[in-house]
Amino acid sequence: MLKDLVLKNRSYRRFYQDYELDTDVLRKLVDLARLSSSSANLQPLKYILSADRDRNAQIFAALGWAGYLKEWDGPAEGERPAAYIVMLLDHAVSKTPFWDHGIAAQSILLGAVERGLGGCMFGNVRKDDLRRALEIDERYEILQVIALGKPKEEVRLVPLGAEGDVKYYRDAAGVHYVPKRPLDELILG
Amino acid sequence: MLKDLVLKNRSYRRFYQDYELDTDVLRKLVDLARLSSSSANLQPLKYILSADRDRNAQIFAALGWAGYLKEWDGPAEGERPAAYIVMLLDHAVSKTPFWDHGIAAQSILLGAVERGLGGCMFGNVRKDDLRRALEIDERYEILQVIALGKPKEEVRLVPLGAEGDVKYYRDAAGVHYVPKRPLDELILG
Repeated sequence: MLKDLVLKNRSYRRFYQDYELDTDVLRKLVDLARLSSSSANLQPLKYILSADRDRNAQIFAALGWAGYLKEWDGPAEGERPAAYIVMLLDHAVSKTPFWDHGIAAQSILLGAVERGLGGCMFGNVRKDDLRRALEIDERYEILQVIALGKPKEEVRLVPLGAEGDVKYYRDAAGVHYVPKRPLDELILG
Repeated sequence: MLKDLVLKNRSYRRFYQDYELDTDVLRKLVDLARLSSSSANLQPLKYILSADRDRNAQIFAALGWAGYLKEWDGPAEGERPAAYIVMLLDHAVSKTPFWDHGIAAQSILLGAVERGLGGCMFGNVRKDDLRRALEIDERYEILQVIALGKPKEEVRLVPLGAEGDVKYYRDAAGVHYVPKRPLDELILG
């Protein structure tokens, strides 16, 4: 059932770093994005893949982790992502992704979950640093980075906190809690 | 396999209009969007559901159909969508959807395909008309409309046309062809 995949597809931020992914898996995930719909069928998204220790380190250095966890700078060595997909907008094709980036990321991450993997989308990226490190041409706008790996944390959905707080949090055992709005709040009529 | 759902999840624009959907199905599809990830977990999206003949007609009147099919004004009576989900951004929560609208739409449409349904995302919406017809408060920005129903057309993926043309087209039998870029064009490295 798709719902099982959707439920398992949480934002994971700690991984079994030594569980390696190969580039062929990343290509298969990008293929799911390729086969998904695109606004006006323009297909302006491009991808850089990384499953390599050195390149992974360069990408990791450009990411801002978990804005709501102020005490946490991101996963320690040994719990970092095993791979990344950097999603770019090719300005030679379109100046806007419309909503293609969300569609593509959702296809990629659902595909990852189906393979027993998991990941996290990053909008909080030091883009100038990443552009320099990966030598990305100005023609391409960096839209987001998807971190991937074998998840090493438990993520639980819970009701909203007091006064409707949506901030995620962790308990002492490291379980990550994500407050979700109830369905009736989302449906206006 | 997720890939089967992704492949079946084409943009469908003609439907068995008398194949009715009930609101409970629409709620279940929105629940898939609700359980999907949201940038900074803000969850700013709201939804209006329609599986009602009069409301469907109001929404239909606000849609621009298939920009590349210049000779076609949209499906005739009898082949129109049986239901719609209007996706809104609640400005009281966030002024931008980031990429949540793509994520949500993909979850909704993959869920529809799993149920033997299908649909199409519309960015080309006469938003002022729709706002008036559905009495949508200014607090909510209209992001997109998802049309849904039992598909009554065949959609085939094909390689790009001459000179890399991405425009979709139909043959005399009404089969709809969608050119897709090859995987190697999308992966820069």
